[in-house]
Amino acid sequence: MLYISNKDLEQIIVLDDIMDCIERAFEIYKSNNFQMPDRMHVDRDEGTILYMPCFTETVSGTKIVSTFPDNINKGISSIQGTMILNKSKTGEPIAMMDGAMITAYRTGAVGGVGVRHTTRENCTSVGLVGTGVQGFFQVLYACKARPIENVYIFDLSKERAEKFKERLSAKLEGIQVHVTDNTYDLVKASDIIITATPSESPVLPDDKELLKGKHVIAIGSYKLAMRELPQSLYEVLDELYIDTEFAAKESGDIIVPVKEGWFDGDRIKVFGQVFNQLENPGKKIRTTLFKSVGMSLFDLLVAEVIYNKAIEKGLGQHLGE
Amino acid sequence: MLYISNKDLEQIIVLDDIMDCIERAFEIYKSNNFQMPDRMHVDRDEGTILYMPCFTETVSGTKIVSTFPDNINKGISSIQGTMILNKSKTGEPIAMMDGAMITAYRTGAVGGVGVRHTTRENCTSVGLVGTGVQGFFQVLYACKARPIENVYIFDLSKERAEKFKERLSAKLEGIQVHVTDNTYDLVKASDIIITATPSESPVLPDDKELLKGKHVIAIGSYKLAMRELPQSLYEVLDELYIDTEFAAKESGDIIVPVKEGWFDGDRIKVFGQVFNQLENPGKKIRTTLFKSVGMSLFDLLVAEVIYNKAIEKGLGQHLGE
Repeated sequence: MLYISNKDLEQIIVLDDIMDCIERAFEIYKSNNFQMPDRMHVDRDEGTILYMPCFTETVSGTKIVSTFPDNINKGISSIQGTMILNKSKTGEPIAMMDGAMITAYRTGAVGGVGVRHTTRENCTSVGLVGTGVQGFFQVLYACKARPIENVYIFDLSKERAEKFKERLSAKLEGIQVHVTDNTYDLVKASDIIITATPSESPVLPDDKELLKGKHVIAIGSYKLAMRELPQSLYEVLDELYIDTEFAAKESGDIIVPVKEGWFDGDRIKVFGQVFNQLENPGKKIRTTLFKSVGMSLFDLLVAEVIYNKAIEKGLGQHLGE
Repeated sequence: MLYISNKDLEQIIVLDDIMDCIERAFEIYKSNNFQMPDRMHVDRDEGTILYMPCFTETVSGTKIVSTFPDNINKGISSIQGTMILNKSKTGEPIAMMDGAMITAYRTGAVGGVGVRHTTRENCTSVGLVGTGVQGFFQVLYACKARPIENVYIFDLSKERAEKFKERLSAKLEGIQVHVTDNTYDLVKASDIIITATPSESPVLPDDKELLKGKHVIAIGSYKLAMRELPQSLYEVLDELYIDTEFAAKESGDIIVPVKEGWFDGDRIKVFGQVFNQLENPGKKIRTTLFKSVGMSLFDLLVAEVIYNKAIEKGLGQHLGE
């Protein structure tokens, strides 16, 4: 069994390759040539644990990932996890890696694929609300997908935002990172807006004029009670994409707007079904939302690519019997 | 995160301690002071994968374990798995070990606890049907729990049985291991009979006179379609113990006999409910069956004990970030 550390991941991962891998995942998703049981939720007082298995012809695997919101007050990442890969024909474990990092790399890449296909090609600014690990990677991928010059960030804790700015700047050569005082300023300054919070009420201003012409990538809400986006956004949207059908069943950011009539459910496009028929977004000003909740097929394929590259490059630590 | 290899396990594990740990698990099971979601099954063409999470105040963890019956023809163990331990308050992963070995050590210990409490104390012989990894450990524990002098083994493949004999003999100082030609001879010669096969039809002779006065420990059947034990056994049983209520819902060796009226369901005793009220079995001749299907609480507590001992002894491999 090969243990692939986060340091190994840094050496292995090429962001554009992971976005390509996610595009392949969307194609497999459309082809139906995989087995993905419903993910299993376990609720504890402190948080939620998800078990996300998936199986293809070549590999099988499981991500165990937990969200314990109070961790952030203990200086520990709220998302923790383990990703296990197995041989699909015998069940033998072949690799283990950090499930939180796989989540971050693949969720970032799903967002990045959203940016590639739903935002106009001359976007030069990104705004990020929520400065956790997920947000960090969302921005990295967005900056790969578009010629970004400025990144605006907001967090309820200014201290966290400042620390985040430092870490992010170190990764983004030639791009300016700014901490904003409020989300109004953030949205105003940004072409692309990424929301990556566990919020239960909208984190963007409920202001049609402000939101018009913006591209929103929302990854925070994965439960009915979680909502990041205001009613106005839906009223000005030209297109609403969801990464998988699950988003329409699980996320408050889709369920509530459809139920309340802010957006016609029939107009929602499932990304896997449409992305290879999408027109090049060009420079046209449109208002779009790409809402992602993820699925274990993404984790599995990204982990498989990483495993194959680790073997190729001789990285990772072989664990003895 | 600490990786604990199978070599580490050999240095850490004291069989009597693991049986004590299983007895503690039965007490916690009775007290209800834990959370154990239903285990999740995934059926594939090649086999079954089980996800078995469990949570206590001090620790949480998950065993992922698969059974791919055809592996045995490829020279690979049919049971494969991974056991992950996490901090219960933050979800942080703290240790990983081989889930198949944890299964073997804990299932062996559950059988061993059955031997401790349900078989007469002067049993000197054990018969084992099915020479897989599970059977191996069942015999080791039985030999710790009673003054065993002779072990009889049977497998459909004589070659496998002979190889198994060699490996087992190396572990059992002062105990004779014999390969038998059939299960009739095996049952006749043995005080305690352990069945550890994936059989869908009885592996012991359907012979009341032969079975009377024997102590059966059955671990193979965990599905309705799986049955290891013949009708006659139930007709001569003085006591039928199951390790947990799940056995009565999952195993063909309990469901079928009750449905067919071979044994009165009301007479079945759930081990966790009765084991600290059991009389010392003494030397009294009785016919008993102890049927185990296991539960994730066993895995969790055994893995926790192993982790604590690994830390104490400085064993295991620390996996870098």
